[in-house]
Amino acid sequence: MGKTRIVMLPASEVDLTKVKYDPGEIEAPHITGLLLKFFVKLVEMPLIGSLLIGHLKKQNKMNQMLRDTLIPEPPMFRPEFPPQEPESGVVFLKEDGKSEDRVESAVECLPQYDPASNSNHSSDSTPFRYWKIRDYAYSYRSSLTTPSIVAEHVISAIEGFSNKTSPTPLLISFDADDVRKQASSSTQRFQEGKPLSILDGIFIAIKDDIDLYPHPSNGATTWLHELRSVEKDAVSVSKLRSCGAILVGKANMHELGMGTTGVNPNYGTARNPHDLDRYTGGSSSGPAAIVASGICSAALGTDGGGSVRIPSSLCGVVGLKTTYGRTNIKGALCDGGTVEVIGPIASSVEDIMLIYAAILGSSPADKISLHPSVPCLPDLSSSHENVSVTGSLKLGKYSDWFNDVFSPDISNKCDDILNTFSETYGCKVVEIVIPELDQMRTAHVVSIGSEAAASLSPDIQIGMDKKLTLDSRINFALFNSFTAADYVAAQRLRRRIMYYHMEIFKKVDVIVTPTTGMTAPVIPKTALTYGESNIKVTGNLMRFIIAGNLLGLPAISVPVGYDKEGLPIGLQIIGRPWAEATVLRLAAAFEGLRVETKRPASYFDTLKGN
Amino acid sequence: MGKTRIVMLPASEVDLTKVKYDPGEIEAPHITGLLLKFFVKLVEMPLIGSLLIGHLKKQNKMNQMLRDTLIPEPPMFRPEFPPQEPESGVVFLKEDGKSEDRVESAVECLPQYDPASNSNHSSDSTPFRYWKIRDYAYSYRSSLTTPSIVAEHVISAIEGFSNKTSPTPLLISFDADDVRKQASSSTQRFQEGKPLSILDGIFIAIKDDIDLYPHPSNGATTWLHELRSVEKDAVSVSKLRSCGAILVGKANMHELGMGTTGVNPNYGTARNPHDLDRYTGGSSSGPAAIVASGICSAALGTDGGGSVRIPSSLCGVVGLKTTYGRTNIKGALCDGGTVEVIGPIASSVEDIMLIYAAILGSSPADKISLHPSVPCLPDLSSSHENVSVTGSLKLGKYSDWFNDVFSPDISNKCDDILNTFSETYGCKVVEIVIPELDQMRTAHVVSIGSEAAASLSPDIQIGMDKKLTLDSRINFALFNSFTAADYVAAQRLRRRIMYYHMEIFKKVDVIVTPTTGMTAPVIPKTALTYGESNIKVTGNLMRFIIAGNLLGLPAISVPVGYDKEGLPIGLQIIGRPWAEATVLRLAAAFEGLRVETKRPASYFDTLKGN
Repeated sequence: MGKTRIVMLPASEVDLTKVKYDPGEIEAPHITGLLLKFFVKLVEMPLIGSLLIGHLKKQNKMNQMLRDTLIPEPPMFRPEFPPQEPESGVVFLKEDGKSEDRVESAVECLPQYDPASNSNHSSDSTPFRYWKIRDYAYSYRSSLTTPSIVAEHVISAIEGFSNKTSPTPLLISFDADDVRKQASSSTQRFQEGKPLSILDGIFIAIKDDIDLYPHPSNGATTWLHELRSVEKDAVSVSKLRSCGAILVGKANMHELGMGTTGVNPNYGTARNPHDLDRYTGGSSSGPAAIVASGICSAALGTDGGGSVRIPSSLCGVVGLKTTYGRTNIKGALCDGGTVEVIGPIASSVEDIMLIYAAILGSSPADKISLHPSVPCLPDLSSSHENVSVTGSLKLGKYSDWFNDVFSPDISNKCDDILNTFSETYGCKVVEIVIPELDQMRTAHVVSIGSEAAASLSPDIQIGMDKKLTLDSRINFALFNSFTAADYVAAQRLRRRIMYYHMEIFKKVDVIVTPTTGMTAPVIPKTALTYGESNIKVTGNLMRFIIAGNLLGLPAISVPVGYDKEGLPIGLQIIGRPWAEATVLRLAAAFEGLRVETKRPASYFDTLKGN
Repeated sequence: MGKTRIVMLPASEVDLTKVKYDPGEIEAPHITGLLLKFFVKLVEMPLIGSLLIGHLKKQNKMNQMLRDTLIPEPPMFRPEFPPQEPESGVVFLKEDGKSEDRVESAVECLPQYDPASNSNHSSDSTPFRYWKIRDYAYSYRSSLTTPSIVAEHVISAIEGFSNKTSPTPLLISFDADDVRKQASSSTQRFQEGKPLSILDGIFIAIKDDIDLYPHPSNGATTWLHELRSVEKDAVSVSKLRSCGAILVGKANMHELGMGTTGVNPNYGTARNPHDLDRYTGGSSSGPAAIVASGICSAALGTDGGGSVRIPSSLCGVVGLKTTYGRTNIKGALCDGGTVEVIGPIASSVEDIMLIYAAILGSSPADKISLHPSVPCLPDLSSSHENVSVTGSLKLGKYSDWFNDVFSPDISNKCDDILNTFSETYGCKVVEIVIPELDQMRTAHVVSIGSEAAASLSPDIQIGMDKKLTLDSRINFALFNSFTAADYVAAQRLRRRIMYYHMEIFKKVDVIVTPTTGMTAPVIPKTALTYGESNIKVTGNLMRFIIAGNLLGLPAISVPVGYDKEGLPIGLQIIGRPWAEATVLRLAAAFEGLRVETKRPASYFDTLKGN
């Protein structure tokens, strides 16, 4: 028990001109190998465990922030969004209509498709670019190929990735026959001239924590399927299926989504397509890697602490975290969480728009409690109007934070593209200040951790926690140390942080940051077997992503270039509540200004074969 | 750690025809006196304390419900209200307008005032009835008396109650000069013919956990004022003040609102006006007692676990718990709680309507997150229309629950008036079933307890918990044992229980129950000094009130008669979300059918003098 009581000023009375950048230092040892096994033993011992966890929390001032401090704001248990101004230059989508119709509307938002733009794609003289959904659709409609032909390439690629001497399993549940069957149905629809939508015959992977019937949902554990059966597709998956998408299987992930590297001693660790010795980032490791490898056009991930954006950034693809409640999370393991959403990963912003249009739609409960605005997309079909709307936007940048990265390559590259962007569109970049970033991190870990602990609690009763990987066990030892009062205090912090952001959004339209504070980390050898606990790496990877989760804001990661080692760098655009259209508009603009593109080392050309 | 994992069916799949009434037994020893002191020492010891609390929780199946059980519903952290059909026969009120105007509209909703009805009030041949707000207003306007004259009676009564050999302090912060000053201003307004509203010159007490400037807010602790200064009136108090009400001081309560008897070793225990050897009920002990004593026309209480309804029932007055978020709780100690509201206590339904009209109005944050319906009152001015609307209502009754009372007098009396009501209005009483009442109680105690623990946490850092009364210390030992995961699990239960109630409200307009499972309990002698912990009494007092708090539903307690010992019995009417008008309409109807009225033993006639 401490001896001091700290009283916070109400957020509305905090003098922002006096705020100093203070992200807080995250202190925890980097442990892997046998030492990790030993540490878990200690942490799970009744008294020593509490002491160890207590020490870690003290070092990170968690109890000081949550227990010793009077936080004047009432708790905000889930994002509560003040009403927002409508966005300009958008096309509205009917969230309760058919997915196929929304995808059709999304296509109309895109610039006209020019098949010639892809004609000499494989030539070495032109810059690399991924096949887009419209490229596949054009090829299918023009009978240049069929979904069944592509399926064989996809199957051979997936099996190849799983069987290499150094295995990099992108999918952890896969049934080639099921893929063939879906592809054959799609092929037949094209033969009959009746494709269901532009997504018909498009290969999509689903993260292992989202239900895809008849696959099990293990969340990358080894045992969850024994306790939880999958009876049908998750809501968002069924929307993709109704558009004709071919759902290839369950993508690899960090166990229960509780990590940012994607390390996975249970099923093998997915490797970064740009450097097979490096992590993909996580927790949506498989989804990002399978898209970056060129095998699937898109994947669905979940993002509760950057889990879509981090691996997208590290793998050089685009990842969208939608506004909290914009998509229906029913059928995902993190259903009921206050920070998680389902979000798409794809190789381009236009593909993200198509997938987003297919899956959006709030749950009935969220329609009551969150009052979402009508979803819309940026109308990019008229270049003139788009340029004018884009030029009117104000971008907020908190330089001290923006530059707090492991390698200056990251901030430099993000700065370069911001400068080009300002020059091209005449946009303003406005300097902003965000206070209490340290508190934001604490509020987030307490929220996501407590909610995960609650979901796992009945399984722990029958000893399943002992079947978790070692780093998960350390995480749950921490999560189980949070009291109910800690949880409530974290929600009081959430309301403060929301206040600051809503004030910032009175001055700017979006906040721009690097997506991650470091590019893809090298995988330590022992981590493949034992996993690892490396809080410093976690801190670097999560530095910029938390507002999207704790406050439920929409955010996108878009690749902007490479560091000196050739590893992808992502820029993150965080938008106002429900303002996916603005975020997507800007992402498309940044994507258009990108000068470097690199073929990933393990790229697999599913359309033409490798 | 247990060895079983229980899986609940989704609430929507539970077969209600097979539900058996199971309120759960609450097991805990009844302790008072020195034993209580010893027990607190044990409970606060590091290891023995956890074991003791663990044992209590096990006996009450709390861990089984929260930790061993897979609850399929997502958490509902605060009430989320599905859209409701508008109520019939109502007058709408402007929540953002002036309180005076709303009170004016409320007056127009009442049957015409007849001064003659009160003419022979003090004669022993007519049944007793309290002076109503309109009686005072009529007397002021007719210059039969003045607020200053009444003030002297009020002051002498309050001082009398505090100075008796057996003290029964109704107010714990009181300044006679401040009351005289307010009364003198009011008197002057009447002299000038410019009263501010029908509430001008009306004496109102404010519970000690609601800010009333310049009084301290101690929540009946001895120390809170040292840490928390009061700079202005709470929002609801300032609304009463702007109507001209005379705010007499801070009413006694159960410490921090964490008890249902009103026992108070810090300031003395308020006594039940109907029997001074008995509890008032709590936590709003002073507010109910000061109204029942005839000293104040009304009082504001807070209700987080029946704290307005229980003492109103035990003291024979009317208490309204409004829909969660209907009033602005800013300036109350429980601001930010998910179960608490501010609600009025008065001697009649019409006075409740007037006070309710004055104080209603959601906070800006709740307008965003709760989307309250437009507030309204039942139009009782046209008797014909009122009877027809009342007759169309369906009343739900869960007989097994309704009859689960300590003395059959309670259920019999409530049944009698229900029968009279059905005969008079032709209303239907529909048998209903409410499953998981035991889970509802657990979810509630975890919610209110965890939130209280979070609020108190910074004060505990500096040792203030050791200054709490003994029963509070036991409560906080329990509350501090709740984990964050327990809290989240409790919120999952909240969504289930909400589902069941919303299904019931598809069939009935309100649910009727006795307000409490027992009438006013005798105060044990030692409890006056040491307090007491009597979970059985708590269980009886709280049996019917929890849905109002956990689900945020409006509920009212209206006196319907007396038990064999002459102690008041209350009937509770629980309404749909935001349906205060229906609840008030029915309460007025029941009030009109009541056959017995009794002058409380300690009644004090402030208008005419005793």
